[in-house]
Amino acid sequence: MRRKSSFRQMKQPVHGGNLVWAAAQIGCPVSSILDFSASINPLGPPQTVLTAIKMALDSLKHYPDPQYTNLRQALSEWHQLPSEWILPGNGAAELLTWASRDLAAQKHTYVMIPGFRDYWRGLQTFGATITPISFPWQTPNSLSLLDNCPETEAGIIINNPHNPTGQLFPREALLPLLERFKLVVVDEAFMDFVPSSRQQSLIPWIGDYPNLVIVRSLTKFYSLPGLRLGYAIAHPTRLQQWQTWRDPWPVNSLAVTAAITAIQDKAFAQQTRQWLLSAYEQLLTGLLQIQGLEPVPSSVNFILVKTQIPSSQLQLELLQKHRILIRDCSTFETLGDRYFRIAVRTFRENNKLLQALSDICA
Amino acid sequence: MRRKSSFRQMKQPVHGGNLVWAAAQIGCPVSSILDFSASINPLGPPQTVLTAIKMALDSLKHYPDPQYTNLRQALSEWHQLPSEWILPGNGAAELLTWASRDLAAQKHTYVMIPGFRDYWRGLQTFGATITPISFPWQTPNSLSLLDNCPETEAGIIINNPHNPTGQLFPREALLPLLERFKLVVVDEAFMDFVPSSRQQSLIPWIGDYPNLVIVRSLTKFYSLPGLRLGYAIAHPTRLQQWQTWRDPWPVNSLAVTAAITAIQDKAFAQQTRQWLLSAYEQLLTGLLQIQGLEPVPSSVNFILVKTQIPSSQLQLELLQKHRILIRDCSTFETLGDRYFRIAVRTFRENNKLLQALSDICA
Repeated sequence: MRRKSSFRQMKQPVHGGNLVWAAAQIGCPVSSILDFSASINPLGPPQTVLTAIKMALDSLKHYPDPQYTNLRQALSEWHQLPSEWILPGNGAAELLTWASRDLAAQKHTYVMIPGFRDYWRGLQTFGATITPISFPWQTPNSLSLLDNCPETEAGIIINNPHNPTGQLFPREALLPLLERFKLVVVDEAFMDFVPSSRQQSLIPWIGDYPNLVIVRSLTKFYSLPGLRLGYAIAHPTRLQQWQTWRDPWPVNSLAVTAAITAIQDKAFAQQTRQWLLSAYEQLLTGLLQIQGLEPVPSSVNFILVKTQIPSSQLQLELLQKHRILIRDCSTFETLGDRYFRIAVRTFRENNKLLQALSDICA
Repeated sequence: MRRKSSFRQMKQPVHGGNLVWAAAQIGCPVSSILDFSASINPLGPPQTVLTAIKMALDSLKHYPDPQYTNLRQALSEWHQLPSEWILPGNGAAELLTWASRDLAAQKHTYVMIPGFRDYWRGLQTFGATITPISFPWQTPNSLSLLDNCPETEAGIIINNPHNPTGQLFPREALLPLLERFKLVVVDEAFMDFVPSSRQQSLIPWIGDYPNLVIVRSLTKFYSLPGLRLGYAIAHPTRLQQWQTWRDPWPVNSLAVTAAITAIQDKAFAQQTRQWLLSAYEQLLTGLLQIQGLEPVPSSVNFILVKTQIPSSQLQLELLQKHRILIRDCSTFETLGDRYFRIAVRTFRENNKLLQALSDICA
């Protein structure tokens, strides 16, 4: 039993942000890689949050409150919802696990392709019957095709804004889904990046639809993916059921402190929205000027780009020559081998990427 | 949808360490309560760990490595096991969830009563057929009764050392279980508190029994229950299966750093074992001198105590008069209303508890 081996995963990862994998590809330290593959706000984490975490270290010697009373209360005030409609989780991904269990109880579950790979993981965990539906994101009336799902005794999981295309569905376009399907799970992980006036969250409708589950993340907007913090919004009966399934303390105490502090940091939110408006324009404009690249206009903090060079080759060249990591999208169904996804980062970092892409694509 | 309500759980909690509940009972701040109800090492967290966490805050802006390569490697070296036999989890409780799924696939699962309540939660999540078996911890040959389980096509979950009685099963006494049952899950959450020379972990046998799962916790010995960190040791095929079920990043990055640092802090471990030897003797001796109390000798850092005053009444009086929280054991099956459990704490804190108990029981 003394045999040693490494778990290092050498095959192409199915999620962005796998810096350990990327560093192993080129034999460099993780810290030297500039990561455009994970769609994380480059301005964070907020200083207020880092300070609050340091102040909260003493809380680690106690168990978290199993009811997460204070965190629920803070989210309740933020969203103007009663706190029993809100359940914090160990990242949105943990909540997708339990949402998937509810979806698996339906006759079918429709899953958009292309789409976030973790939906398949959760659904397969509970033996769901998955029916992929093609999302024709390149056509003007893309959402209408969802209405062609033949089965009504079904569940559906969708992503708004959509990853990896960055498309934002108008709230009203989702109404037929709520009227028709037994269970509708809407992953709004990137909704905070949409300017307030244009947001299309279904939160205002939650009280009217016991068949609706909304999953949100705090770790992308507040740059805390290492800390794990998401929450679900759904009917209290459903959330109470999930609590009987999962372990008693899924959210760590520092994530609790970070979340409560983060949502109160209005200056950080404003600064982020200001940065994103101009940095997005900078990156999109720059990409449009590079031969062989076709960026897809996006509503959020990442951009899908079509490339004439195969995406895996481009990814490797960027890593080897520039230590820049992009998200090769060949693991997204139907996209093939000519798409990659990049996060919008700071002006300086965006310029570095644009320069590197110009070098390779020229 | 503007109705406000609190999730504060006013019924008796089923786990120790629920300070929010305790504080609500007597209307005082959480920080003013002296917690003997959670069996956490009072010397920690180690300074080395707190320093390492502060240094690691920058890692929060990246996703954790989904393979947890460095943490597995550290645990691999610590236990002299190949790293693919080790799977970190979001506290031992998360791993109990997936172990329970494997147990639920057996015809029956035997669960010792009295025992840790979370085993029932995990098993019920996956619809296991639970067969409680009485653990006659007060008799000299207590483990032999486990051999009377009639069903062999079964799984069993046991706790060594046992919570709440503090009994330690000799390794050899568990051998018949491994030979007989389809799946044996051994929760060794408190094993680190047993002096090295007397430990009875099944880790040395793991390579010989693909039907064995060992669950360990780092948060009790290193005083980090708020951070959530446990790990499972089992056959790699089983652990790979669990990874396909659960979300990709269950362990937060600060827990990773804390764990790697903690297991290297040999001075803290030595200091803890020295403290426990004498503080345990102090507490046991003190309890034996209080009229109406009968402490049960324990192998670890908590003591089960029989009381002539009903345990819920004693718990409330200690809270109200002394702001001390003990674990009323009336939610443990078969113990009835006359047992409570207390952690061994520092000499000063133990004295405070002994004085308070003397006042009430006199």
